[in-house]
Amino acid sequence: MNTPLLSPSRRVRRTPFSDGVEAAGIQAYTVYNHMLLPTMFNSVEEDCRHLKTHVQVWDVSCERQVQIKGPDALRLVELLTPRDLSKMSAERCLYIPMVDQDGGMLNDPVLIEAGPDTYWISIADSDVLMWVNAIAACNSFDVEVTEPDVSPLGVQGPLANELMSRVFNEDVKALRFFGCNRFAFEGHEFLISRSGYSKQGGFEIYVDNYELAMPLWNALFSEGEELLVRAGGPNLIERIEGGLLSYGNDMTRANTPLECGLGMYVNAGRLDTCFGGRALREELEQGSRQMIRPIAIEGHIPMCDRVWPVYAGGKQVGQVTSAAWSPDFETNVSIGMVERSHWDAGTKLEVETHEGMCDAAVQDAFWK
Amino acid sequence: MNTPLLSPSRRVRRTPFSDGVEAAGIQAYTVYNHMLLPTMFNSVEEDCRHLKTHVQVWDVSCERQVQIKGPDALRLVELLTPRDLSKMSAERCLYIPMVDQDGGMLNDPVLIEAGPDTYWISIADSDVLMWVNAIAACNSFDVEVTEPDVSPLGVQGPLANELMSRVFNEDVKALRFFGCNRFAFEGHEFLISRSGYSKQGGFEIYVDNYELAMPLWNALFSEGEELLVRAGGPNLIERIEGGLLSYGNDMTRANTPLECGLGMYVNAGRLDTCFGGRALREELEQGSRQMIRPIAIEGHIPMCDRVWPVYAGGKQVGQVTSAAWSPDFETNVSIGMVERSHWDAGTKLEVETHEGMCDAAVQDAFWK
Repeated sequence: MNTPLLSPSRRVRRTPFSDGVEAAGIQAYTVYNHMLLPTMFNSVEEDCRHLKTHVQVWDVSCERQVQIKGPDALRLVELLTPRDLSKMSAERCLYIPMVDQDGGMLNDPVLIEAGPDTYWISIADSDVLMWVNAIAACNSFDVEVTEPDVSPLGVQGPLANELMSRVFNEDVKALRFFGCNRFAFEGHEFLISRSGYSKQGGFEIYVDNYELAMPLWNALFSEGEELLVRAGGPNLIERIEGGLLSYGNDMTRANTPLECGLGMYVNAGRLDTCFGGRALREELEQGSRQMIRPIAIEGHIPMCDRVWPVYAGGKQVGQVTSAAWSPDFETNVSIGMVERSHWDAGTKLEVETHEGMCDAAVQDAFWK
Repeated sequence: MNTPLLSPSRRVRRTPFSDGVEAAGIQAYTVYNHMLLPTMFNSVEEDCRHLKTHVQVWDVSCERQVQIKGPDALRLVELLTPRDLSKMSAERCLYIPMVDQDGGMLNDPVLIEAGPDTYWISIADSDVLMWVNAIAACNSFDVEVTEPDVSPLGVQGPLANELMSRVFNEDVKALRFFGCNRFAFEGHEFLISRSGYSKQGGFEIYVDNYELAMPLWNALFSEGEELLVRAGGPNLIERIEGGLLSYGNDMTRANTPLECGLGMYVNAGRLDTCFGGRALREELEQGSRQMIRPIAIEGHIPMCDRVWPVYAGGKQVGQVTSAAWSPDFETNVSIGMVERSHWDAGTKLEVETHEGMCDAAVQDAFWK
């Protein structure tokens, strides 16, 4: 198969860091929220190895913010998710499944209290601004729903603490998981959270000052030189090993948060308030029909660019939606959605890749 | 600059025609509605020449359908657009600007009456399903809002009539512009409209039967062999020459339909009913602040992958968002948004590309 190029256009937006990404030798992108997201600099395996041992700077500008601002902002936010929001504060952001009126996943963003009556939803790949804004319009809520000029920059890997404390200050090390606070760089206070789309630890800097974007990028690279910092991006192998779901890959509007293994973010006390509450309550009572599972696949597999049906005894019992060879675990790691009858750890399955059938087995946990 | 690849993933969806597209030698894609959209097979210039002289088959599956079905379907549709819908019928589809509560463009789809109490919105690149579905949920409308498994296939070019009548039947030639009807292929009735994203004439076949997708593709190629049919896709040069706007490129939620030159689709009598009516009425009364204009640019220009500011006398008066060299018109053709003070035909401007400043001039019409 040939490897097609990605056509340039304004619609597939560049980011404030694109010049840096290009200078770092970007090899492949994906498109995410109508924006360029770097996926590969050397090779997916080599990028994975480096991420697990050093520190990387990720242009994740495509994690666009949906800003909800105004007196009714919290009232609106409470409609959007079944998660208990009482622990949210200016110092703590929350991962929130967002669901529609039937409990179907619309996005799985991080919710940030960015200021008084001001919330940012740091989104996965769907135009959930349209959902939020329509709810605002239909209810005549006193809010503005916008996409502000904010581009997250990720710093991920075991040496992230060290690099961040060099560029900002030592206090950044004190941030707890999903903690957030403001830190100064060249006189500007950036919101920073300890979060990110890897299991290696790290931070996300919400870059709301376009002029400082490349100076910040460059400072991370100069301060990180002896740490062997590199440009990177969400890594296919590492995120599957760690069980980090990808909206659009592993879950869609056809799935509920319970099916996605996100039950800890579904609070029974919130189900009278939020969209989809009735459907989620029914599922809580009756049990889920299917669930996200880690699945090890044997043999040679192609790149997973489509849904792979999963069979047991000739009957389809699920699907695999992300898969890659893991050099560290010496198996093909994958994420699948499997029916209740076959989701127990150890269950033998067959995965139908587009190049043939492979033996597989449900695992008891993701690979960590 | 290097030319980055597009990473494969399930999230960037393949189409029912992807096997055919690959066999035809696809060179470049863009991503549109989370789906692969072919953009180049030979070169943009060569593809353009062929489109203007022969006939092409376009995989425009990415024009996803938002289906609104149920007793309240028409009531919901009427909220979505300021266009007068009284001329719509099962035999006539309509181009409808969709706007938010402030008159901002959310999408510019084609509206199709697909059956009793059933409408399809054949969408440009935004998840407008979320907007439509939220309106349904907030108003407790008795409708279902879904993305059905429908993948449009375009047949575009001067020989489109000839090719379509060979694969379907002579009656297809009788379809008028934006007319639609059902035509049989291998026993299945496909909805077909005379429409498409080129100015060369042609059709869109709404392929709602996955099993027949590749047989239909193959029939178009075998029946079209002596017509020198080729695989193609929306062509950057041809669509700029023809003034076909691209949502996300030439207009966004920051623009109203009036600014986009779509005033003929804004009906004063509808403005009390639809979203954004008040803002659009104000703009109708006061005149638009800026407008889409054809702009000819002199000199050498790079690929337009970002907004190019437009200046007059050192002051920014607009922006260019799509541009390409046109071999037929021997100039760089472009689409820009220009403020009222400088939108008259003949006005001299300067366009700041990312490789330098170029002289330019507003044209009286697109290039046809």
